[in-house]
Amino acid sequence: MTPSDGAPGVPGVRMAAEMAEQPERLAGLVARRPEIADAVAPLLEGIAGSVVVARGSSDHAATTGRYLLEMATRRPASSASPSIVNLYGIDVDFTGHLVVGVSQSGRTAEIASYLARAAALGGRTVALTNDPASPLAHAAHAVVELGAGEELAVPATKTVTAQFVAFALIASSASGVSGFAGEAVWERLPGQVADVLADPAPMLELAEWLADAERLVTVARGPMAGASAETALKLEETCSLLATAISANDLRHGPIALASSGIRVLAFAHPGPAAPDVLELSADLSERGADVRLVGPVEGACCGWDPRVPEMLAPVLAVVRGQQLAHALALRIGRDPDHPVGLTKVTAT
Amino acid sequence: MTPSDGAPGVPGVRMAAEMAEQPERLAGLVARRPEIADAVAPLLEGIAGSVVVARGSSDHAATTGRYLLEMATRRPASSASPSIVNLYGIDVDFTGHLVVGVSQSGRTAEIASYLARAAALGGRTVALTNDPASPLAHAAHAVVELGAGEELAVPATKTVTAQFVAFALIASSASGVSGFAGEAVWERLPGQVADVLADPAPMLELAEWLADAERLVTVARGPMAGASAETALKLEETCSLLATAISANDLRHGPIALASSGIRVLAFAHPGPAAPDVLELSADLSERGADVRLVGPVEGACCGWDPRVPEMLAPVLAVVRGQQLAHALALRIGRDPDHPVGLTKVTAT
Repeated sequence: MTPSDGAPGVPGVRMAAEMAEQPERLAGLVARRPEIADAVAPLLEGIAGSVVVARGSSDHAATTGRYLLEMATRRPASSASPSIVNLYGIDVDFTGHLVVGVSQSGRTAEIASYLARAAALGGRTVALTNDPASPLAHAAHAVVELGAGEELAVPATKTVTAQFVAFALIASSASGVSGFAGEAVWERLPGQVADVLADPAPMLELAEWLADAERLVTVARGPMAGASAETALKLEETCSLLATAISANDLRHGPIALASSGIRVLAFAHPGPAAPDVLELSADLSERGADVRLVGPVEGACCGWDPRVPEMLAPVLAVVRGQQLAHALALRIGRDPDHPVGLTKVTAT
Repeated sequence: MTPSDGAPGVPGVRMAAEMAEQPERLAGLVARRPEIADAVAPLLEGIAGSVVVARGSSDHAATTGRYLLEMATRRPASSASPSIVNLYGIDVDFTGHLVVGVSQSGRTAEIASYLARAAALGGRTVALTNDPASPLAHAAHAVVELGAGEELAVPATKTVTAQFVAFALIASSASGVSGFAGEAVWERLPGQVADVLADPAPMLELAEWLADAERLVTVARGPMAGASAETALKLEETCSLLATAISANDLRHGPIALASSGIRVLAFAHPGPAAPDVLELSADLSERGADVRLVGPVEGACCGWDPRVPEMLAPVLAVVRGQQLAHALALRIGRDPDHPVGLTKVTAT
């Protein structure tokens, strides 16, 4: 066995290798933009609304995805409550609704069965998955193949960024959508991801900052919310750190009481309409006694990414920052990020 | 000054007094059921979907509310992302959608402005508020007056249960809805709330269990999710305990890694389709090392409520259990639940 096999004793090499694959995997995905648009655009015509359904990391891509879908289609977008269809057996009428199911393997039973019911109940269904032969794909009118390849480390990385990009591709297929102007936006993305990967130092510093932490709050607003939630989950998975993602505005309603306990807060922002709100809240939290670090190409941040990336794709780069932090912190506190305590790859999403 | 004035030195009397008002306040609300149905039923006819918009505790009522609306109307229901309309200025087309705004005071700026925009953009708007003269009410085609009266303690209690009940009243107004059969269901509710309030002992025991805790996970599934989230927030507000509400199925995707650290988990369940899932997860978490307590009229629970309450109203009783716990724990750890550290009543929702 070589170190690249992820042999026991070489902690984190698998996760690192899969993170490093991301520029190439995403380049392959965005290169299929025309065929994805052809498959999806007809399903977006004249919709009444859209519904996303997923669990775990896939659900964080879906969180950002529902912002992008609502912004692009200008019709309400919703995150599904799978229990209504799956446990309560209620025949929700999905006529006129786009329903997007997300699962890495396409074999998460509750997501595949939800999408199949949604199709039977009138929905226009789309599957985001690595496996076009999976049950999820079979339930879909259109399949966006992620092309992320096999993932061996337990914490999902390259699949997740592919899901974020896939939602952006779907949203950009809606007629009359703005914010994705020009092919250059897509062509630059893999290089922007590579640039973040080539700059791990700030995240090693943040790992030092979190080395003795038992809890963390992550904060964002708007489309960045999915990246904030994904970072919290990655830290929880790899480091058993109790990390909670809270919307900037929800934080003002009660949880802000935690600030006075000196809690650590990681805030994400990208230049745009939501940024001033996150910056203002960060300053307020600091003043109340919280220990705040800011990530993104904005003033006062410890690190960021290429500010030219459009806001709708910025969560992809924020997710990579979160991966770097989870990987670095796990190693810093003596854990193997490839094999988190108490987790296996059974609930592949 | 008498102790009932909530004078400094008598911690928690205001919150306790407002909790105690709940049976009477809810009796007043359910007595207005015919007029509420008359106002709301026409707006529910033939909708394409519904959207709820709120923050803080009101948003937890809305979390349960969106389950009830989707179950009753059999059309997708969504929790709004206010930033899309309020910060990004996108004109989402709400034609054919019911849009329900929730704010205790009716003066939470972002909720009132969202509802006003939704009305201008074709939505059928409903306001749930204590103040029928508020900006939120002005933006609504129908107003459900909560009638909870003035709230002096910072942690909202009687307003929140009124909001949960108001959503159940709206859902029960949809044509062909089942699960609320008979007037008796509504008439029994105030007494069922009073019975829970008359039985604080189990929550004093749970407060003892949590006295040295720094973190807690609350768990539920289905309509009970809003009560789980509300309990987590109440504990966070009154005790600065880092409490996180997680859906039972999301917990299986990553955060379950926390179980091995011996984390305390509070699970809520009511007899029905979602209960087996919560019970199974509770057992799994215990086996992995978590310290789990179960609340609800189900096997193995430390306490519950009248099992005859329909599942759609059970979250109301669970919320009262959570209030009891927050009040008891705050006193146990030497805090005044009426005046949480770092919080004021400025962000009245």
